[in-house]
Amino acid sequence: MKLVLHGYFRSGTTYRVRLALNWKGLDYDFVPVNLVEGEQSRPDYLARNPQGLVPALEADRVILTQSPAILEWLEEVFPDKPLLPSDPVQRARVRAFAAAIGCDIHPIQNLRVLKKVKADYGADQEGAAAWARHWITTGFDALEQLAELSAQADREASGFLFGDGPTLAEVYLVPQMYNAHRFGVDLAPYPRLVAADAAARALPEFERAAPENQPGAI
Amino acid sequence: MKLVLHGYFRSGTTYRVRLALNWKGLDYDFVPVNLVEGEQSRPDYLARNPQGLVPALEADRVILTQSPAILEWLEEVFPDKPLLPSDPVQRARVRAFAAAIGCDIHPIQNLRVLKKVKADYGADQEGAAAWARHWITTGFDALEQLAELSAQADREASGFLFGDGPTLAEVYLVPQMYNAHRFGVDLAPYPRLVAADAAARALPEFERAAPENQPGAI
Repeated sequence: MKLVLHGYFRSGTTYRVRLALNWKGLDYDFVPVNLVEGEQSRPDYLARNPQGLVPALEADRVILTQSPAILEWLEEVFPDKPLLPSDPVQRARVRAFAAAIGCDIHPIQNLRVLKKVKADYGADQEGAAAWARHWITTGFDALEQLAELSAQADREASGFLFGDGPTLAEVYLVPQMYNAHRFGVDLAPYPRLVAADAAARALPEFERAAPENQPGAI
Repeated sequence: MKLVLHGYFRSGTTYRVRLALNWKGLDYDFVPVNLVEGEQSRPDYLARNPQGLVPALEADRVILTQSPAILEWLEEVFPDKPLLPSDPVQRARVRAFAAAIGCDIHPIQNLRVLKKVKADYGADQEGAAAWARHWITTGFDALEQLAELSAQADREASGFLFGDGPTLAEVYLVPQMYNAHRFGVDLAPYPRLVAADAAARALPEFERAAPENQPGAI
């Protein structure tokens, strides 16, 4: 199957899909869509994805959008090297961790929302960064507790959040930690999240997906 | 299995879970968590869900959080009356529609974000409503196009978004349309979304889940 990922090197949602593709050992072409230059709003991209957001994944001639949907599709169609556990309750825990980032942190500190806060309310760069830090720390406060509960349940010392390897929890966490660094979030209160991020990024599949290792990185 | 749903009658994420439970014919108890009175931040609720958000679903003694994770769990554990199609690409399309609401509309117009816009930037009630309308209309503009593409592909006249019955797309759409009404969004540009909402709400399982039919409704 021919896979083409359309996205932006620094976009967290694109980063998630790169992580899953790499983890599963799937070859793909990458087509940069420069968000800063507004390429996501150009007609040729909107024809692929009317929402005008990245990423979009072309699989043969089918176009898939929305990273949560793409990740579940990858898991269903390429089940090797799974990113979800097999037990339904554990799957729900991993998905809840992912959704706490994917719904309740990332979209509220996304570029388009920061632009809106600046445009409507006159926030400056630091004001926008403070807004982002608020939602990241609010979310991380809870996720650190979830990570602690998970570690107690698993009695694991691997550093990973669920079991002894990466899951969708790390696929969502690593890009969010990247954003946390960009916005200057103090990570000292989150030792388990820091450990999981480090354990995951040490994997070669994760390292190859890092924003700085992509075409178009600046 | 004993199911207890903790949530708020007007919360869109709680409403989603009620819709899925009802559609699948599952009995459950409902425990109100009054968001306006801050009950989600009380110690007894935080012990259930450290994130301090609704809903939480108790399944026997296990506590599940995050509506996207709860909905996938319900689909896996109670596969009758499925809310996802069987074909992987169609599943991805339904999940993308759901995520476009669950990630890119709902969280940005949620009560806690509106409160933050008021507190940090002095927005009044109308300013907060305008913020909510912006994100709802931005999202609905794209979803209306997706609904049109889906209708062309399926050649369906049922009104439902994917095929001839409800899926997770309607489970996410109906609560978001309820919020759109509350914030005074002009729905005239969205005939397909309006039709899907109406088709779904006409189902008795969906009607019983409506906010005004819940304990604690005001």
